[in-house]
Amino acid sequence: MYVCVGVKVNGFACKKDADVTENDFFFSGLAKPAVVNNTVGSVVTGANVEKIPGLNTLGVSLSRIDYQPGGLNPPHTHPRATEIIFVLDGELDVGFITTANKLISKSIKKGDIFVFPKGLVHFQQNNGKEPASVIAGFNSQLPGTQSIAVTLFASTPAVPDHVLTKAFQIGTKEVNKIKSRLAPK
Amino acid sequence: MYVCVGVKVNGFACKKDADVTENDFFFSGLAKPAVVNNTVGSVVTGANVEKIPGLNTLGVSLSRIDYQPGGLNPPHTHPRATEIIFVLDGELDVGFITTANKLISKSIKKGDIFVFPKGLVHFQQNNGKEPASVIAGFNSQLPGTQSIAVTLFASTPAVPDHVLTKAFQIGTKEVNKIKSRLAPK
Amino acid sequence: MYVCVGVKVNGFACKKDADVTENDFFFSGLAKPAVVNNTVGSVVTGANVEKIPGLNTLGVSLSRIDYQPGGLNPPHTHPRATEIIFVLDGELDVGFITTANKLISKSIKKGDIFVFPKGLVHFQQNNGKEPASVIAGFNSQLPGTQSIAVTLFASTPAVPDHVLTKAFQIGTKEVNKIKSRLAPK
Amino acid sequence: MYVCVGVKVNGFACKKDADVTENDFFFSGLAKPAVVNNTVGSVVTGANVEKIPGLNTLGVSLSRIDYQPGGLNPPHTHPRATEIIFVLDGELDVGFITTANKLISKSIKKGDIFVFPKGLVHFQQNNGKEPASVIAGFNSQLPGTQSIAVTLFASTPAVPDHVLTKAFQIGTKEVNKIKSRLAPK
Amino acid sequence: MYVCVGVKVNGFACKKDADVTENDFFFSGLAKPAVVNNTVGSVVTGANVEKIPGLNTLGVSLSRIDYQPGGLNPPHTHPRATEIIFVLDGELDVGFITTANKLISKSIKKGDIFVFPKGLVHFQQNNGKEPASVIAGFNSQLPGTQSIAVTLFASTPAVPDHVLTKAFQIGTKEVNKIKSRLAPK
Amino acid sequence: MYVCVGVKVNGFACKKDADVTENDFFFSGLAKPAVVNNTVGSVVTGANVEKIPGLNTLGVSLSRIDYQPGGLNPPHTHPRATEIIFVLDGELDVGFITTANKLISKSIKKGDIFVFPKGLVHFQQNNGKEPASVIAGFNSQLPGTQSIAVTLFASTPAVPDHVLTKAFQIGTKEVNKIKSRLAPK
Repeated sequence: MYVCVGVKVNGFACKKDADVTENDFFFSGLAKPAVVNNTVGSVVTGANVEKIPGLNTLGVSLSRIDYQPGGLNPPHTHPRATEIIFVLDGELDVGFITTANKLISKSIKKGDIFVFPKGLVHFQQNNGKEPASVIAGFNSQLPGTQSIAVTLFASTPAVPDHVLTKAFQIGTKEVNKIKSRLAPK
Repeated sequence: MYVCVGVKVNGFACKKDADVTENDFFFSGLAKPAVVNNTVGSVVTGANVEKIPGLNTLGVSLSRIDYQPGGLNPPHTHPRATEIIFVLDGELDVGFITTANKLISKSIKKGDIFVFPKGLVHFQQNNGKEPASVIAGFNSQLPGTQSIAVTLFASTPAVPDHVLTKAFQIGTKEVNKIKSRLAPK
Repeated sequence: MYVCVGVKVNGFACKKDADVTENDFFFSGLAKPAVVNNTVGSVVTGANVEKIPGLNTLGVSLSRIDYQPGGLNPPHTHPRATEIIFVLDGELDVGFITTANKLISKSIKKGDIFVFPKGLVHFQQNNGKEPASVIAGFNSQLPGTQSIAVTLFASTPAVPDHVLTKAFQIGTKEVNKIKSRLAPK
Repeated sequence: MYVCVGVKVNGFACKKDADVTENDFFFSGLAKPAVVNNTVGSVVTGANVEKIPGLNTLGVSLSRIDYQPGGLNPPHTHPRATEIIFVLDGELDVGFITTANKLISKSIKKGDIFVFPKGLVHFQQNNGKEPASVIAGFNSQLPGTQSIAVTLFASTPAVPDHVLTKAFQIGTKEVNKIKSRLAPK
Repeated sequence: MYVCVGVKVNGFACKKDADVTENDFFFSGLAKPAVVNNTVGSVVTGANVEKIPGLNTLGVSLSRIDYQPGGLNPPHTHPRATEIIFVLDGELDVGFITTANKLISKSIKKGDIFVFPKGLVHFQQNNGKEPASVIAGFNSQLPGTQSIAVTLFASTPAVPDHVLTKAFQIGTKEVNKIKSRLAPK
Repeated sequence: MYVCVGVKVNGFACKKDADVTENDFFFSGLAKPAVVNNTVGSVVTGANVEKIPGLNTLGVSLSRIDYQPGGLNPPHTHPRATEIIFVLDGELDVGFITTANKLISKSIKKGDIFVFPKGLVHFQQNNGKEPASVIAGFNSQLPGTQSIAVTLFASTPAVPDHVLTKAFQIGTKEVNKIKSRLAPK
C-alpha cells in the first residue's frame, strides 16, 4: 500500500507499508464534548492529519464543535475545504454568505445536515437552552480556519487601525475597543 | 455565487445565484436510525448530491450507517472517495485491507474515528449487544459503492460461473449456492 | 482544439473549433484606470471568464485594482484562488493574515510583486499621495470575492445582530451603526 | 526541467535536470510473456513508477498481462486509476460491474480495446485455445491493485470468519475451505 | 453508475446507467496497421473519448502509431498529457527535449517502453528496415497534438513570415520553401 | 498556516509558520525593463517559485516580457500552464495555433489582455516603433517554457539531422545553417 505516514510529504510523514498500524487511522479525541470556557461559547476540536497521520494525501477530515446555550462559532472561513455538518445534539441557527452577498441561513436541529461551500464566510449559533454539538466533514486533510473578527482585530502584529476604520467605517476609538476585547488573554 | 443547482453540470443541475435557497444545502434524512430488515443487518443512508443539490462541484458528502447487534456492513469499496467515520452509538469491529494484502483492523466505540483510504476494501461489524450507528464523511459529492459479494454473485447479468469458481477456487455448485442466497428478493 | 465557448460547461459556453475567434481570448476593459467614487477609495475590475469566454476550463484570470490616495481594498478573501499582484503605479501597504493569526505585511511600490495565498484574508492600501494601481493574477477562471466587512454587515438578508455582537464583542447599537454606514446606497 | 527522480516526492525520488538520463524513462521488462505458473493462469507485470523513476508526478503507467488458455485475471480493483487495455494476442472475455450492479461484458480479440472505469471491480479471462496477452494503460503512476478473492480470503492477518460468512451467506466450513485454497504457498 | 455518455459534459455526452452498453467502452479501430502514405512516413490513430464515449471524465486514452522504414513521427507536443509507449514491432529512435534544452534520447525495440513527459516536444523515428508500430498510453481522455513543423509552417491562416524568419534565423525565401512543402495537399 | 518554504515539497522548501516572513511572498525583480541584447529582441523574466519561495504549492506565477521594436518572443509552449498577458506598454501582434492547426491572432496594445491556452504554441512580436512590455499570469508556480526553434535546433545533444530534415522537408545543409545560427554563443 502507498501510505504517507513517515517520509515527509506535504510536511507530513510517509511510512512503509510494513510499519503502518491501525493507530495511524484512528482517533478518539472527539468522543467527549469539549469544555467550553471562552467568550464566544463554542469550541472546535479537529480530527485532521495533525492528529491522524494516515490521512496524509487522502483529502478528508472531521471536526467536532461544541456550543453552550447561546454559544456562537463566529463567522469564519476554511481556505481549503467545503464543510458539511451533522447535528449531534441541540438546535442551531446556521448561515453562510455568498459572493453575491446573499445570506443563506436556516434553523437546524439534531440529525439535520447543512453545507457551507468552499471558502465562504459562515457561522453557527446555539439558540436553544441546551448544549449543542455537531460533527463536521471537510474535503481536505487540513482545511485551515480563519475566524474573521479575531483575524482582523487580534492578529500579531496587528492589522493597522486605518485599514479597519476604513473597512468598517468606524473610528479608531471603536477599533481599539474591539481590539482590546478580542485580544488573547 | 457560483452554485450548480440548475443547468446540468456533471449530470446535476446549476442554479442562478438569485434562485438558490437554504434548502439546496439542507437535508434531514439522516436524523433517525434506518429500519434494518435485511440479511446483513445494516443499512447505509446517503446524504450526497442526489439528495443535496447544493453539493454539486463541492466534493464532499456524508452517510449514516445503522447496524443491528451482529449487523455487518459487508466488505465494499468506494471507487471515488476516502471515508472517515465517527461512531454515534455502539461498538464496532472495523477493518480495511491494503494493496499489500495486510488487514488493518480495530475495535472502536462511541466517539471514535477511523479512516478507510480511497478505493480499498473495508467493512464494519457491530459486535456489541446494542444497535450501533456511525456518520461517515467522504471527499466526493457522490462516492459510489460496490458491495463485493453482491457485485460478484448478484449482478445483472451474472458474472460467469467459471470466473467465480476460478477466483474463489470453489465448485460451480458452491458458486450457485452463494448466488441463490445473495439474489435480490 | 478543445475550447468551451458554446455548450454550457461549468455554467459557461463551449464553441466548436471552427467558431472560435480571437475575440474569445481578448479583453480591453483593464486598459484605463477605473473611476473611483466610493467610500473605500478603490475599485476592482475583473478580466475573468465572465468577460473572456475563452478562459472557460483554463484556470487563470486577471484583475486590475485602482486606488485613490488613501484608498483601501478592504480585507477580503477569494474562495477559489491564490492572488499575485504586480504594482503598475504608486505605493501600497499590503498584508494577509495566516491561519495561525500572524499578519504578513509589507510596503511595496511600482514594479513590486506580492502573493496572497489561497483563501486567506488580505488587503492593500494606497498610503502614497498619488493614485496607485495593480494587475492581479489568479489561478482560477472565476476566483470570487468576499469583502469581509460588507459580507458581515451589509448582506441581504442581514446577518443577525447577536452573531455580530458576540463575534466582535460590541453592542447592538455599534453593530447597527456599522450596518447603516456599509449599507448599499 | 522539473523531473522528480532523486529527492523524495510522494515517497519517490527527484533528480536535478543535469543528472536525469534516458534510462530514467525506459523499461524493457514487458518485452516477453511472463511465465504463468499459478492457480489462476495469469500474470500481471507492472511498468510503473517503481520500475520507471521518471514517471514520478507524471500520472500514467502501463502493465502487461499474460494469460494461459483458460487463464483468469480474477476480479479486482485499482483504487487510484481507470484502466484501458489493448489486446496483443488471443481472445478474452472481459467485464466490469457498475455501482448499480450491472455487468458490462464483451468478448474481445487481438487489436481490440476495452475500458474499466476507475475503482470498479473487473476481470479478464482467456477463453481461447492459445495464450493471450494485453497491454494496459492507467492514469496513475502507481494504480495499486486489490484482487478481491485474495484480499478477502488470504490477507494477513485474516479477515474474521464471521465477516465472510455473513457477506457471502456461507458457513464457516466453506469459508475455511476457500481460505485454505487461496492461502499463499 | 456515473457514466457520462449522453448529456453533454466537457462537450461530450452522459448516459443514464440503464442505457450504457459494453460498446460505450469498446473500440476495434487500432487492430490493424494504418496505411502509411504521407511524407513523414508515420500515421497516428487515436482511441480517445471521440471514439470511446465511455472514457468521458475517466482521464485516460490510447493511440496506435505505425511507421514505415525510415518513417518519422515528427517533433510534436500533447498539451494535456504525458505519453508512455510500448513498442509492438520494430526498432525506433525516440527522444524528448527538456525545458533546460537537453535531449533525452534512446534506441528502443519491440517490447520496450519509453516515457515522454507532459507537454514536452518529442519524436520517434523508425530507423530499422521493417515497419514498426507502438501503442501509446495517455493520462487524458483527449490529449491533443501539435505537430511542430506543421503548426508553424502550415496553419490556417499562416503564421507571419517575419515571426518564422526571426525564430529560425532564416530568410523569407527559405520560410516559403518550407511552407510550400508542408502545405496540405 | 501551512506554508511550504523549508522542508522539500515538489523539490522546494517548507517553512514552519513561525519562520515565514513577508519576503517569502515578495519579489522586486520585474520592476525594470530587462536589457534586451539577443537575436530575437525580447527577454522573459520569471517571478515563479524559484524566486518567490512562498508560491510553493499555490499554483500561480507571473513573468515580465520586454520587447525591442521588432522584437519577437518566438513560438514556444508552456507545458504546465495557461498564460494570460496584460500589455504594460507598446503594441504587439500575438497569436497561438490550435490543435486543429488554426491560427488565432490579434494586434493588441497597451492595456489589452490576451489568453494563450495551456500547452499550445504561441508568440508575441513588437511591430511598433517603441519598446513594448507585458505582464503574464500563469496557473502554475513553475510553468516551464520550450522555445520551439531553439528546442529543435539548439539542444544538447542535438536533435538528429534526419529528424529535422524530414519534419521540415529541408536539406541537411539548411538544417545545419539553422543550427549554427541558433547555437548558444
